Amino acid sequence: MTFSLTVLGSNAAIPANNRNLSAHLLNANERLFLIDCGEGTQHQLRKYHVSIGKIRHVLISHLHGDHFFGLIGLLNSMHLLGRREVLHLYAPARLQEIIDIQLDASLTRLNFQIVFQPLCFEGLQLLFENERLQVHSFPLLHSVPACGFIFREINPPRNVPLARSYAYCSDTGYCEQIIPYITEVGLLYHEATFMQDLASAAADKLHSTAMEAAAIALKARARKLLVGHFSARYEDVEPLVAEARTIFPETYPAEEGSVINIF
Amino acid sequence: MTFSLTVLGSNAAIPANNRNLSAHLLNANERLFLIDCGEGTQHQLRKYHVSIGKIRHVLISHLHGDHFFGLIGLLNSMHLLGRREVLHLYAPARLQEIIDIQLDASLTRLNFQIVFQPLCFEGLQLLFENERLQVHSFPLLHSVPACGFIFREINPPRNVPLARSYAYCSDTGYCEQIIPYITEVGLLYHEATFMQDLASAAADKLHSTAMEAAAIALKARARKLLVGHFSARYEDVEPLVAEARTIFPETYPAEEGSVINIF
Repeated sequence: MTFSLTVLGSNAAIPANNRNLSAHLLNANERLFLIDCGEGTQHQLRKYHVSIGKIRHVLISHLHGDHFFGLIGLLNSMHLLGRREVLHLYAPARLQEIIDIQLDASLTRLNFQIVFQPLCFEGLQLLFENERLQVHSFPLLHSVPACGFIFREINPPRNVPLARSYAYCSDTGYCEQIIPYITEVGLLYHEATFMQDLASAAADKLHSTAMEAAAIALKARARKLLVGHFSARYEDVEPLVAEARTIFPETYPAEEGSVINIF
Repeated sequence: MTFSLTVLGSNAAIPANNRNLSAHLLNANERLFLIDCGEGTQHQLRKYHVSIGKIRHVLISHLHGDHFFGLIGLLNSMHLLGRREVLHLYAPARLQEIIDIQLDASLTRLNFQIVFQPLCFEGLQLLFENERLQVHSFPLLHSVPACGFIFREINPPRNVPLARSYAYCSDTGYCEQIIPYITEVGLLYHEATFMQDLASAAADKLHSTAMEAAAIALKARARKLLVGHFSARYEDVEPLVAEARTIFPETYPAEEGSVINIF
């Protein structure tokens, strides 16, 4: 039973250093969840041979452009490629209006239905549930309302010893309040925009350093930490990873195109 | 004195066949005009080493997504990179609202001014003029209001025998009404979405075939024809070019990254 993550983008704010903007694809038993959708995400999906028609759920963490400007193009392409299946979209309420005005301006009436579920930004919110999986959102600490997402297998298959889980936490300042939501997660993705020498800038902008991401992973007893949302100032991100590993050795960089099997 | 065009995208509707969506960059004596801005245009500008800070004018032909979904990301990046200079934007009026709602949702107040000039879709409209150059828009024949653009040098420098000129015509069905606006243009870019066997589909969708583009070039006495906005169905576009050349031998495909010096 597949439970794997494909990283599609790892840069913060602007595309740079051959890194694209935030987007992750979770394959949970062949049910595909796209998490954030920066500009160029549809190009990345094509590059890594993901059929956009197979995406059933899209989750948008917050309305900073580097996390959602690629969505309208993706929806438009799904439409042009003849999609008929419902798409489930979980996002801040205002995204509905942003989509509608752009479809209206181009006289486009999508030939598929979007079921829009607005995020709330207080406590745990159930977004999706079936007999195998639960998906919840929870609030992050950012300059606009932002949610993290936690995917947990329930009733895991016999050949998997533990229920597998994945948490996506971007964008956020250092925030211990998220720990109860992500305790013992198998794979934690946590933003790590800056190195520790810019901890003060990170705090001001409500972003995190790699070491802060590692501290959250340690306190949450995560098994593995993936860091990303790197500032464009870092051409090489190995130093960020190295800093994080001083606190949490099982830290890895979000490398675009890599597929991570979650255990 | 530079008068050159860089092709940034050449595919219609969706990115495919390693071709990006519509965007051209005209350098007229170091004044940079970006013409259309499909999703991923900022990535293309970066790839071809164009500093986005140097773009002074953006022209959007119409509000189909493949021609403008990249604009909001480009504006956001200009802002994040500290732009202070005014940007001149010529586009269908509704684009203002589309930009504003997205900036508002992300609590972004641009640190530069956009001077927005709405396009009108009747006759020739002067968009920009200085002592060296005039830029006009004129109506095309499409399913939503759409404009072509014509750039003509005035008072050409001594070492240039003729006033140089460039016309951008996308998207449009076959439309002889545009000929007076583009007569004797040096370089005509005309969309060529389909091959001739799909002429009827082209007419239905208000797009052109490569041969129709060539017919316009011939009747307008253009010196050179550049075709693009290729349907994703054509992996190889040489057959389209070959068809066009039966009517207008000086036809070339819009190849991404190529820089064309206009004479």
